[in-house]
Amino acid sequence: MTASFHEMWQELRPIGRNSSSGGYRRYAWTGADADCRAWFKAQAEARGLAYELDRNGNQWAWLGATGYQDVAPGDAVVTGSHLDSVPDGGAFDGPLGVVSSFAALDELRGRGTELDKPLAIVNFGDEEGARFGLACVGSRLAAGALTTEAAHQLRDGDGTTLPQAMERAGYDPEAIGPDPERLARIGAFVELHVEQGRALDLSGDPVGIASAIWPHGRWRFDFHGEANHAGTTRLEDRRDPMLSYAATVLAAREQARLAGALATFGKISVEPNGVNAIPSLVRGWLDSRAPDQDTLDTVINGIERAAAERAARDGVDLTVVRESFTPVVEFQHALRDELSAILAKTGERTVPVLGTGAGHDAGILSGTIPTAMLFVRNPTGISHSPAEAANEDDCAAGVTALADVLEGLACH
Amino acid sequence: MTASFHEMWQELRPIGRNSSSGGYRRYAWTGADADCRAWFKAQAEARGLAYELDRNGNQWAWLGATGYQDVAPGDAVVTGSHLDSVPDGGAFDGPLGVVSSFAALDELRGRGTELDKPLAIVNFGDEEGARFGLACVGSRLAAGALTTEAAHQLRDGDGTTLPQAMERAGYDPEAIGPDPERLARIGAFVELHVEQGRALDLSGDPVGIASAIWPHGRWRFDFHGEANHAGTTRLEDRRDPMLSYAATVLAAREQARLAGALATFGKISVEPNGVNAIPSLVRGWLDSRAPDQDTLDTVINGIERAAAERAARDGVDLTVVRESFTPVVEFQHALRDELSAILAKTGERTVPVLGTGAGHDAGILSGTIPTAMLFVRNPTGISHSPAEAANEDDCAAGVTALADVLEGLACH
Repeated sequence: MTASFHEMWQELRPIGRNSSSGGYRRYAWTGADADCRAWFKAQAEARGLAYELDRNGNQWAWLGATGYQDVAPGDAVVTGSHLDSVPDGGAFDGPLGVVSSFAALDELRGRGTELDKPLAIVNFGDEEGARFGLACVGSRLAAGALTTEAAHQLRDGDGTTLPQAMERAGYDPEAIGPDPERLARIGAFVELHVEQGRALDLSGDPVGIASAIWPHGRWRFDFHGEANHAGTTRLEDRRDPMLSYAATVLAAREQARLAGALATFGKISVEPNGVNAIPSLVRGWLDSRAPDQDTLDTVINGIERAAAERAARDGVDLTVVRESFTPVVEFQHALRDELSAILAKTGERTVPVLGTGAGHDAGILSGTIPTAMLFVRNPTGISHSPAEAANEDDCAAGVTALADVLEGLACH
Repeated sequence: MTASFHEMWQELRPIGRNSSSGGYRRYAWTGADADCRAWFKAQAEARGLAYELDRNGNQWAWLGATGYQDVAPGDAVVTGSHLDSVPDGGAFDGPLGVVSSFAALDELRGRGTELDKPLAIVNFGDEEGARFGLACVGSRLAAGALTTEAAHQLRDGDGTTLPQAMERAGYDPEAIGPDPERLARIGAFVELHVEQGRALDLSGDPVGIASAIWPHGRWRFDFHGEANHAGTTRLEDRRDPMLSYAATVLAAREQARLAGALATFGKISVEPNGVNAIPSLVRGWLDSRAPDQDTLDTVINGIERAAAERAARDGVDLTVVRESFTPVVEFQHALRDELSAILAKTGERTVPVLGTGAGHDAGILSGTIPTAMLFVRNPTGISHSPAEAANEDDCAAGVTALADVLEGLACH
């Protein structure tokens, strides 16, 4: 007897949960991450699936194969998502896709469906990038979108490198790198995810299909000023980088508003960060996304110009580093239309197709293999927060839609 | 043979120094603090002074008494300062006063001066408040300006309470509290300190005398918004506290400029502080100072009003907490005039008298006992920074001035 959707949810619930915020802190290669991984392996084994760990630490559970080597090129149908979280993230972002994958398999077995193709459920490592600052490390490595050398340079806030973190967690950091043989076996990857906006809530649908992921990236703004005593330094003698930072935060919002884009400063690091010290350094991270590349370029250029002008006025030196960037991702039209057709056959109405500003492993892999995404309604649109939610009926609708899609894709 | 000024400076130089910033991290009750304390005790013993640790962890070195109990009320002449630092502070703020005290005593002995009154050199604990957020804890406790109960509530950034930190450092946190018997013995406390502005540099004097400390305080601004995904949440659905914070930083500068005061946001704490998360909470600390109380009130009211207006626009909840406040301190005119007269006799020209925005233990104690301060020229005015400096000749002039003052005060 395998765990039901509800039981799986209960098992995951306490892992990495911060009791004061109520949010999750499941960061790559930590104890909470190890607990999530152990849970995944146990679920695979309880269902008699062949468990496999790939060179990049992504976990796979196979039905109809003992591992990717058994599979003919382009034959496998794969579903899954990730189990890690942003700092104080919600319960659904990631885990809903993994739990729904196991539940969809259970539903197919309950229906007595015989699949003609091998099926895999995957848990991609380090999707959120909460610890090392780069999102989708597991899928990027597999797709060759992140080199082994660059991955070895990643460092967390305490100075621990990715290889050190992997070694401490019992994994081999020397093994990481591109995995083209594995990806070549996959004919379709479908990722189910809680919606991170309110489109489905506004349209009144429990489930949607992704059209595209907006181009998006992260930029680090380093404002270098001069540390000095806050209680004795005349205003005219100051080189205060907090002023330049503050003006840039407001400029980012304004540029995004004018362009119909998104721009957010959500992370900051200040040195020395003392109450009575003018900072020597304010480091702010900008996250920005837009429906298309031209709009995003306009927004970023506008913010950089405003930051540079203000920094010059404040006697502050500015450097801007683009830490990561993902161009627009159009999910494959053929697979997207196939999903629409499958769900139109089983459902009462047409499933809406919607764009999103959020990055996903499915977006990373879409350059290499056919990928698609299903979204489950989020009644408040709140995400990356303990308040993130999805109601039970909608989760059940998501599982059924995923089961229908897998059946449609894996049966001739 | 006791250590010279230069040798004492060399001994202190490596303690708590951060090799990457070049600044000092000597926080209360840490290992670096213990090293500073061991150094003080060794200096006292090398000079045959009676070493004494008071109930609040302040260190005393007595000449002409075995401790404060030997001293008649109002008879002792005391000098000294502190050895702790702000985060990445300079070498001079604090230590210059302690090193100069020992050097001034050596100079008096070299002159063959016989003192008629007991003399003490003191190292006050936790002057900067870098760890627990409240400045001058050692002198505040002694003067009863901080209650035992309130001190027991102090907590550092890691959640460690002051009592826990004291215990781990081998001190008894239950002993702390007012020390009126000790303070009653002191007839004059003179603190030498590096200037934290450019007044002496502009006037061309190596040494000055303090007139007053501006009223000053710390206010914590808590902007409570709503955590959400930076890549998917529409601008109009956001409650982003970083925007309210940024507008408040700029408003603070503007209010200070208009009023001829100082206002600085140098410390910030953000939750969850993730690149792709709109913050749920931005906490910013304001340090503000002005020549008089009315001006300071005007500045703070103006900043609070601007913050509240912007927070309301952003859908953000604001609470402002005054964490500490010190009213204007006029140093005792009689003692100040006595210092001027002593230095006028020995020096070539009148020593300038100047105000300062910085708080000091001498300011805290001025409500209870006669206190005065000497400032040593700071060629750049830079302070609370690794770049803080004073040149050798000016330091020597400071030692000689302090020796003259101590001789003048302690000899009939």
